[in-house]
Amino acid sequence: MPSTSKFARESFVTMTEFVLPNDTNTLNNLMGGRLMHWMDIASAISAQKHSNRIVVTASVDNVSFKKPIQLGNVVTLNAQVTRAFNSSMEVAIEVWAEDIPSGKRIESHRAFFTFVAVDQLGRPIDVPELVPETDEEKELFEGALRRRQLRLVLAKRMAPEDAKELKSIFNLP
Amino acid sequence: MPSTSKFARESFVTMTEFVLPNDTNTLNNLMGGRLMHWMDIASAISAQKHSNRIVVTASVDNVSFKKPIQLGNVVTLNAQVTRAFNSSMEVAIEVWAEDIPSGKRIESHRAFFTFVAVDQLGRPIDVPELVPETDEEKELFEGALRRRQLRLVLAKRMAPEDAKELKSIFNLP
Amino acid sequence: MPSTSKFARESFVTMTEFVLPNDTNTLNNLMGGRLMHWMDIASAISAQKHSNRIVVTASVDNVSFKKPIQLGNVVTLNAQVTRAFNSSMEVAIEVWAEDIPSGKRIESHRAFFTFVAVDQLGRPIDVPELVPETDEEKELFEGALRRRQLRLVLAKRMAPEDAKELKSIFNLP
Amino acid sequence: MPSTSKFARESFVTMTEFVLPNDTNTLNNLMGGRLMHWMDIASAISAQKHSNRIVVTASVDNVSFKKPIQLGNVVTLNAQVTRAFNSSMEVAIEVWAEDIPSGKRIESHRAFFTFVAVDQLGRPIDVPELVPETDEEKELFEGALRRRQLRLVLAKRMAPEDAKELKSIFNLP
Amino acid sequence: MPSTSKFARESFVTMTEFVLPNDTNTLNNLMGGRLMHWMDIASAISAQKHSNRIVVTASVDNVSFKKPIQLGNVVTLNAQVTRAFNSSMEVAIEVWAEDIPSGKRIESHRAFFTFVAVDQLGRPIDVPELVPETDEEKELFEGALRRRQLRLVLAKRMAPEDAKELKSIFNLP
Amino acid sequence: MPSTSKFARESFVTMTEFVLPNDTNTLNNLMGGRLMHWMDIASAISAQKHSNRIVVTASVDNVSFKKPIQLGNVVTLNAQVTRAFNSSMEVAIEVWAEDIPSGKRIESHRAFFTFVAVDQLGRPIDVPELVPETDEEKELFEGALRRRQLRLVLAKRMAPEDAKELKSIFNLP
Repeated sequence: MPSTSKFARESFVTMTEFVLPNDTNTLNNLMGGRLMHWMDIASAISAQKHSNRIVVTASVDNVSFKKPIQLGNVVTLNAQVTRAFNSSMEVAIEVWAEDIPSGKRIESHRAFFTFVAVDQLGRPIDVPELVPETDEEKELFEGALRRRQLRLVLAKRMAPEDAKELKSIFNLP
Repeated sequence: MPSTSKFARESFVTMTEFVLPNDTNTLNNLMGGRLMHWMDIASAISAQKHSNRIVVTASVDNVSFKKPIQLGNVVTLNAQVTRAFNSSMEVAIEVWAEDIPSGKRIESHRAFFTFVAVDQLGRPIDVPELVPETDEEKELFEGALRRRQLRLVLAKRMAPEDAKELKSIFNLP
Repeated sequence: MPSTSKFARESFVTMTEFVLPNDTNTLNNLMGGRLMHWMDIASAISAQKHSNRIVVTASVDNVSFKKPIQLGNVVTLNAQVTRAFNSSMEVAIEVWAEDIPSGKRIESHRAFFTFVAVDQLGRPIDVPELVPETDEEKELFEGALRRRQLRLVLAKRMAPEDAKELKSIFNLP
Repeated sequence: MPSTSKFARESFVTMTEFVLPNDTNTLNNLMGGRLMHWMDIASAISAQKHSNRIVVTASVDNVSFKKPIQLGNVVTLNAQVTRAFNSSMEVAIEVWAEDIPSGKRIESHRAFFTFVAVDQLGRPIDVPELVPETDEEKELFEGALRRRQLRLVLAKRMAPEDAKELKSIFNLP
Repeated sequence: MPSTSKFARESFVTMTEFVLPNDTNTLNNLMGGRLMHWMDIASAISAQKHSNRIVVTASVDNVSFKKPIQLGNVVTLNAQVTRAFNSSMEVAIEVWAEDIPSGKRIESHRAFFTFVAVDQLGRPIDVPELVPETDEEKELFEGALRRRQLRLVLAKRMAPEDAKELKSIFNLP
Repeated sequence: MPSTSKFARESFVTMTEFVLPNDTNTLNNLMGGRLMHWMDIASAISAQKHSNRIVVTASVDNVSFKKPIQLGNVVTLNAQVTRAFNSSMEVAIEVWAEDIPSGKRIESHRAFFTFVAVDQLGRPIDVPELVPETDEEKELFEGALRRRQLRLVLAKRMAPEDAKELKSIFNLP
């Protein structure tokens, strides 16, 4: 492994937040935008750890919110870089919530954020390669290519017919 | 048009925000998570206007952040419902920023949020159908079906081969 | 119209805010000071648009709060410059609130903020003249002189007997 | 003095605030709206002390901002009720700022807020009479009538010709 | 081990915070009060995990701030319950900061917070006993008694001569 | 008294805060960390007044929270420097809360914060000596030495046997 590569686990970050009144809507549920704000901060710190650079959010993949998270719940966010591409990094982030007094745990879900490492003038700069070790890290590393193609197709920066990896989701040749 | 339908334009919402120090990172750029927080609020108000109900965020489609927005910039967010499906609504949201003293305008981009209308107990409840009028509203109305299939496929709640509309992006039969 | 003038409508700004728990008092009503904070931001952006300058708040005219605005209401603020005087601008701001689920609309009211355009060192700098077009804009333009005299009299910077326009409110010679 | 009256000094409140980055504009000056938010809180506490009731902001008189207050300054707000009218109270509030390291003090100015005392259902409820003691308290007590007439005239709830006290500012019969 | 006891490690909590402009003073250093706010939240979550109850802060032991933490630093807080006494729990909290781009790590320090578990009416309620496993957990468990005596002596709720454990710091009989 | 000394009363600061929803936990009680944040700001302003310097928090002594403070209460914080030691100052801070509508006053308690005065580069710099005048100020001045020794012993920067003043709490030779 070359000196310019780092292990996936070196970028691991855990963040814990307590849901306060101003984070909630009129049903006392955590607002989706507030949760995305926390996800952005946790995954930015993870990308910073991998790159030792200032990072800027480049994109967020589809996020779906399954069950409502309530006022007073404790939210845990675990972020880790899945793969690096030149100056950009994909971060996988797992979120779950707990109502500690009742012991109820709100089902987790996963999202992907992409960051670009920049220098002091805001210009993109190369980051170390990422080396996955566990089976889960390897699977996330493989899938990162497919997700990247989907992002490029959706942003109209890649022709769908060139997105070889992506086509595999549709079981197409 | 039946009494349980509303025009797209009735759900139009404009929100203006001033980028303050706490909204920015160490490069004085607006943080992606903060912008998503504003997008969530603006589009939730739009979905409220269409449904006259409390709404909860169900999902956010891929968002990509093109150019950095700076401290002191004025951010404008325009949200409008594109289509209703039973209890859920897709909202299109356009965002752009201006540095008013210099007259510089930061390129706009568009995102899609989905909301579910709920009653006081948080249970999903049907909303009026949406009637598009302009060409742009009609195009967004048509595309909503395709984006919905992509969301379902990505959330593993629809088999890719059943996503007829979605396949059209890949020019496949 | 000389090149250094702009139309009133070019300074129009709409801002939408959602009333969150921390914006309210123990009766769940929006606090007056929080509303004034929003009014200041919306009208400052309007004055920035007219002048393309950094602006600082110079004064706020009498504001009266008619009906309470509740937690969960959506507040809309519409601001537009009414008239420019050398380096200062008067902005009229209309505010109303809606309880969207119940369809109840809280009666609007109007306030006037005055801003001074400044350069990077904070020194006052001239702004374009304002050209009113509609009847309402013309009426606001005319009234601006009277309101300015009231401000100067109240700040003890003009003798009441010199406030010719102002006397007209009291139907005096 | 009847049991339902209180001295002006019993409602005295001092509040101290430190100007933080998010309170300032791009010139590092305290934003006018943020200062009004603090003025509203300090004067509401003063009106609460006089009435021992929940209070709601009814109006704010003309406020003019003389010199800019800077990031890092310490702002002091002194509020005291000047006079009570049935369920409403006028509060005078003095504000000044200091740059403590340099010993520079930013010139003080005074504003007037009016509050209404309400019961748990938000209905207006009578408050004790206010008894001024010092010369300054007596002058503020006298002036309160004139300022009240100006508020009513400006809100179009009193005909200018009936505002006897107010006319005295214009030296008119 | 009886059913009403839990291991120390079951209460472990990690929290990560990014130092934003409003968290800092005029030297761009994290304010001590802001850090204590985070320490209180992290240790309260730890005490909640041990007790499965709502908890209220009872006391904070001496905290000393060694080196300044800067704007843009990432702060990590690790909290774990050290010992339970009837309805109260002592939590040890370790804090350190990193300037990730430069790789500089700001020396860690440790503080102790005490919480009381309460029922829905706010009355104290017993919590499980804590079972330490590692050497460090055992040392913290032992020291908790001494720290508790110091708290009681300082709060004048225990005579110094009765504080047997505490005297050991002074090497006295 | 030499020119480089100041009276204790010159550093007196009063701060008033209104407990808002986001300051409270799920029992509607003010969170301990939020209160410590306010205590830090009030006592920092007091230390600034004594030293006419930027100050940084060096330590906080044991704080115990007696009775819960509720949503809607008014919190008053009175801070004053007790003694100066070269570049550091000890500040005593008294806190109490009132539920103004019911006239209930929540018992006061006292805490001690220590600050270091620094120059623009963050280096410690000497401050004026403090001169106590009243009996209470003199008692606080005397006790400051004992509290300082306790801080140094707890931070393991002084051997317990050298803490002569401190031993007096334990009535030891």
